[in-house]
Amino acid sequence: MKKLIGTAIVGQSGGPTSVINASIYGAIRTALDSDCITRVYGAANGIKGVLEERLYDLDLEDPQELELLKNTPSSALGSCRYKLKDAQEDESDYRRILEIFQKYNVRYFFYNGGNDSMDTCNKISKYMQQVGYECRIMGIPKTIDNDLWGTDHCPGFASAAKYIATSIMEVYLDARVYDTGMITIFEIMGRNAGWLTASSALAAHAGMGPDLIYLPEVPFDLEQFLSDVQRLYAERGKVLIAVSEGIKDKDGKYISEYGSNLAQSKDSFGHAQLGGLAATLTAFVKERTGAKVRGIEFSLLQRCAAHCASRTDIEESFLAGRTAVLQALDGVTDKMVGFERLPGQNYTCGIKLVDLSECANQEKKIPLTWINQAGNGVTQDFVDYALPLIQGEANQPKEEGLPRFARLKKVLVQP
Amino acid sequence: MKKLIGTAIVGQSGGPTSVINASIYGAIRTALDSDCITRVYGAANGIKGVLEERLYDLDLEDPQELELLKNTPSSALGSCRYKLKDAQEDESDYRRILEIFQKYNVRYFFYNGGNDSMDTCNKISKYMQQVGYECRIMGIPKTIDNDLWGTDHCPGFASAAKYIATSIMEVYLDARVYDTGMITIFEIMGRNAGWLTASSALAAHAGMGPDLIYLPEVPFDLEQFLSDVQRLYAERGKVLIAVSEGIKDKDGKYISEYGSNLAQSKDSFGHAQLGGLAATLTAFVKERTGAKVRGIEFSLLQRCAAHCASRTDIEESFLAGRTAVLQALDGVTDKMVGFERLPGQNYTCGIKLVDLSECANQEKKIPLTWINQAGNGVTQDFVDYALPLIQGEANQPKEEGLPRFARLKKVLVQP
Repeated sequence: MKKLIGTAIVGQSGGPTSVINASIYGAIRTALDSDCITRVYGAANGIKGVLEERLYDLDLEDPQELELLKNTPSSALGSCRYKLKDAQEDESDYRRILEIFQKYNVRYFFYNGGNDSMDTCNKISKYMQQVGYECRIMGIPKTIDNDLWGTDHCPGFASAAKYIATSIMEVYLDARVYDTGMITIFEIMGRNAGWLTASSALAAHAGMGPDLIYLPEVPFDLEQFLSDVQRLYAERGKVLIAVSEGIKDKDGKYISEYGSNLAQSKDSFGHAQLGGLAATLTAFVKERTGAKVRGIEFSLLQRCAAHCASRTDIEESFLAGRTAVLQALDGVTDKMVGFERLPGQNYTCGIKLVDLSECANQEKKIPLTWINQAGNGVTQDFVDYALPLIQGEANQPKEEGLPRFARLKKVLVQP
Repeated sequence: MKKLIGTAIVGQSGGPTSVINASIYGAIRTALDSDCITRVYGAANGIKGVLEERLYDLDLEDPQELELLKNTPSSALGSCRYKLKDAQEDESDYRRILEIFQKYNVRYFFYNGGNDSMDTCNKISKYMQQVGYECRIMGIPKTIDNDLWGTDHCPGFASAAKYIATSIMEVYLDARVYDTGMITIFEIMGRNAGWLTASSALAAHAGMGPDLIYLPEVPFDLEQFLSDVQRLYAERGKVLIAVSEGIKDKDGKYISEYGSNLAQSKDSFGHAQLGGLAATLTAFVKERTGAKVRGIEFSLLQRCAAHCASRTDIEESFLAGRTAVLQALDGVTDKMVGFERLPGQNYTCGIKLVDLSECANQEKKIPLTWINQAGNGVTQDFVDYALPLIQGEANQPKEEGLPRFARLKKVLVQP
């Protein structure tokens, strides 16, 4: 294998997770330790940082602070939601990226993100091949949504799942302290794929989970839902419900939009009123049952709760970043690092390499066979799949009783 | 001291906390170990369980499961919000309690709760004294609101504070990943006392906290608030705001009610729309600034997040329960166990005994001198007060990567 000498750029893109920095640390640490990589730059806010020549000189960072990235949530280098046009349509962004790559002799590019980021990574990779600029380009997956194609699971998913299952178990107990009826509705992230909402079933596996689970993979029927809730409420007095933010009816309309007439209503001050899915369903359920109903939205908490991260996820995330660099040093390019489950009774995570073009923009949803007939729960298959991923504790470093997150210098290179 | 032989009833009342069971475990364990206490009963749903003769036989519980109560959130014996009438007004409840006490030879009564529960405890204590029934009655404090009179702080507060500060630090990082503006509003529990909302200042102490903090102790001025937010948004681009659910304007009107006209509005299905304080303020701030604004309500999560409990709080909660029993065995009655800070540079928690009549129904608020001049933040005094309380980690026992909570048999005594 021909040794390729040059600098590296690492970048992060898309929504953050609580372990995305474990991945970027895996890449940064391995790149810093390599003889072939002469300098490691961090793109500020993903590909936007490359386009705008905002690059952090990561060689200047304190190694101990870098290591703290393993337990620090939320894209330390900054993120973006910038979509590159097709090169045939508009080449200007690609020319600019090439210019920067040439200026800094960038021969390694590692991009840490989800579906859209793999698309970006793929486009840059193909462009560089086309213009004959030698650069090894690797995708490092992340997404709490767990919807990346070509990998058994995605770094970031398991930590969000562990947080959600843990929190639901706690609320399960809280909701049972009074001998009066109560219905609790959890709204969980996931527009198109229900992996994260399904993770509420891990709480049920532990005996303290939701009675009903609704995923975007199957159409949501409001009337059926209300009748299920009413029946369970009559039977049990306490009902816990987990719904994915992306549930839609059979006509493809988001249930969260059922309250949209309201969203346009104004209060006495003339201000528009907001209301998400949890609030909308809460109103419907309250009216139907007359029960005390509480909507709980996990909101941003579910994707940044590093204090409740899975040790397995942290280690695998680190491994994904490290593998991307080691593979690139070995001559591999144009791939995303993926995971596969190795055969055997005990869970072991193996590595596979997926063509960037294959995973870009494809979504992996929950198999329909893992969703129960009634469309209001998941099967044991899902639990068997997800349970090994949430094992182990974060053991975050603390300072004065609170998390000690990485404090990077982030020194910008003078253009 | 005369030895008093008889049975004991322990009960829990009011809103749960993530460590209330550490207290009740302290009481149960110590009572089970005592020679004078012949049987330990748990009142199901607090005083309601006594009135309805629903008593759990706690001698039948597995000691290991009982010990797991130290890390299990939310009133394991069940809770209630039952207010006893004054005995002069209506004696029937008291006669019934006396009847049960006599039937089971109850000579020790331990009640674990907040302001209202101390009122209940006090009323029962005074009644038993009046009718000459010998029973030693002790209050064991708990409340995330930290508003109990006569004690330096309350079991349950610190764990909620640690969870809130930790979560805000995580969201602080999450809210900074994009290079676009964003305003985040956290709604935190506390109708009349702002202790818990003030605990967001611990995140600020760690360098990742809110820019603005609003407590119910000072009147909230919407116009001033919006102008503060607008100014900070222009300066910083990212603004984090912590508000107490109980903030009121100078006329005493809850700010959450500013959206009440809306709450009565109906959508196209005729369902009433819900909206809390966070949603209301989000709408106001969005209109004023045009920024992306996100409201996050910690909801029940903040009072049951045992996975993020403070070790100091767990140990002190246990100590409060244990002390109540030891003191009663020593002849003390009619008191609540309180805490006091012992002199010295390092934090040490001492015990004091407070007359039940003194703490019943009195609220302790944040001293106004701990709130800044502008009424939108707290001083270092608060941080110095709260920081020692959140030290140490929960180290919860886990099973398959999730919390292993106590599984009690809760065998009801046959009446």
